[in-house]
Amino acid sequence: MLGAIEAGGTKFLLAVGPSPDRLTAQTRIPTRDPATTLAEAADWFAAQGALKALGIGSFGPLELDPASPRRGFITNTPKPGWGDCDIAGFFRARLGVPVSIDTDVNAAALAEYASARTQGCRSLAYLTIGTGIGGGLVLDGQPVHGIAHPEMGHIFPRRHSEDRDFSGLCPHHGDCLEGLASGPAIKARWGASLSELADDHPGHGIIADYIAQACHTLFATLAVERVVVGGGVAKTPGLLARIAARTEALAAGYLPGGARHRVVAPAHGDSAGITGAAMLAALAEPALWPEWRESETRPALARCNQDTGKS
Amino acid sequence: MLGAIEAGGTKFLLAVGPSPDRLTAQTRIPTRDPATTLAEAADWFAAQGALKALGIGSFGPLELDPASPRRGFITNTPKPGWGDCDIAGFFRARLGVPVSIDTDVNAAALAEYASARTQGCRSLAYLTIGTGIGGGLVLDGQPVHGIAHPEMGHIFPRRHSEDRDFSGLCPHHGDCLEGLASGPAIKARWGASLSELADDHPGHGIIADYIAQACHTLFATLAVERVVVGGGVAKTPGLLARIAARTEALAAGYLPGGARHRVVAPAHGDSAGITGAAMLAALAEPALWPEWRESETRPALARCNQDTGKS
Repeated sequence: MLGAIEAGGTKFLLAVGPSPDRLTAQTRIPTRDPATTLAEAADWFAAQGALKALGIGSFGPLELDPASPRRGFITNTPKPGWGDCDIAGFFRARLGVPVSIDTDVNAAALAEYASARTQGCRSLAYLTIGTGIGGGLVLDGQPVHGIAHPEMGHIFPRRHSEDRDFSGLCPHHGDCLEGLASGPAIKARWGASLSELADDHPGHGIIADYIAQACHTLFATLAVERVVVGGGVAKTPGLLARIAARTEALAAGYLPGGARHRVVAPAHGDSAGITGAAMLAALAEPALWPEWRESETRPALARCNQDTGKS
Repeated sequence: MLGAIEAGGTKFLLAVGPSPDRLTAQTRIPTRDPATTLAEAADWFAAQGALKALGIGSFGPLELDPASPRRGFITNTPKPGWGDCDIAGFFRARLGVPVSIDTDVNAAALAEYASARTQGCRSLAYLTIGTGIGGGLVLDGQPVHGIAHPEMGHIFPRRHSEDRDFSGLCPHHGDCLEGLASGPAIKARWGASLSELADDHPGHGIIADYIAQACHTLFATLAVERVVVGGGVAKTPGLLARIAARTEALAAGYLPGGARHRVVAPAHGDSAGITGAAMLAALAEPALWPEWRESETRPALARCNQDTGKS
């Protein structure tokens, strides 16, 4: 049996099941201080029976460097009490199983990738637009971390011509993507969520433009095949179509991936995070998910015409 | 012996040698129509003795999808005569060796990555700022293609407050990064190259800002450890330091990679492209470069505390 945690700033989602696509028990607990929250989570897992592995998709920032003695720690989060919290080590010690951890958004990206690859997709970014904005990235079956992990909400979109006055809510950057297009930034400007605004309210086009700029940036810098746009704001009726249309307009027909680049809704809906966390658990143990390992062999370099005969 | 081609819009650089770091003969030929240019290149290689493999770093756009029957083709380039040119297939047929192809910028990124990894770096982007602007990306030893290949010059930086009037030179996007910060865009505004402008000319700060926005975007979306900034414009004295300082200012201390993110000059100078092309040749044949293959095993997921004992 696998265990999975989607560790969020306001709640922890916990699940167990025989495989990532069959989570047979699930619960949620409110996020309080680490000692209380983690102990309650561990007690719930202990009551579910023996686990083989645990996967965690967590809020961050996280230390993910395999060479660091602090890998698996939540690091300098402003969330009171959670700074320098060894979340992975806690569960390893309490449950006595291998623990695999990644960002919440990389976990969600992994779940979405697993669905998309059944249609041949090999590169995917997951953007979540909610209280904050974050993104995860999976290329050829591998979540991307770089030297730490992406913080895609903190790129700087161009300001929309009808949105010049708002200074943005990000405490670090003011009007970065998160500062402009997160749920709280929408409320701060228009006093309501995007779903509550009239269909012809300019807010729809403004927010779609900012998110489209992020999608275009991902297509241009990475050539990912798909950008999955999830999170509460993304549920606004009509928004995804606006984002897709605006993203296509920004590319102006130029990118070599052309129409193969797509902006899509999450295949897993709101369960991408917990499903992805269970996948992290499955991937921690090679014996648990052999078919993934077989299909996700390292991609070949773009070799051409490897036979040496004349054509 | 390996062969290497850096295929550019104005010239082809050709080289051979026993390994990528020892290119013992090199020449350059002007780029004319494909038939003339490719035949001259093939004749030069034929005169150098028997090759084991050929690597090509080429201008694009390229078809790099391993599943496409047209992989290794230059596709819809505006360059007269070069559209739908099977550059890889031509050399395979003429030279009878395996041919490996990637974008010119991915080849350069590969060479820079090979140097950087001796210092522990596992993720790197290469930006070239010259007649055009392009970028390549290597993560854990693997050039990144996505569904096609990146076109990093076509992201949209925010307009600098002292550069509001110039509409940009990109025929597709107007004022995208390439439209604003390429060599021709600099000349169009100020009638000179950046190196020719006085030290206190505002052009230095404006161009540094645009390139810094691209660096910040790469750090935030990918968390790459290094961005290598090459190309003719990047040789402007003082520019790299300005870019690095502005990039750091944009992050505002927020990114989890922190000071580990670095903007650097190319370790290979102007030879990154041809060296990387030779690396593509070496990688085409597993027997040719076994030490790379051993060190570049697929990275582990960010697993923590894999032993299951209590700590």
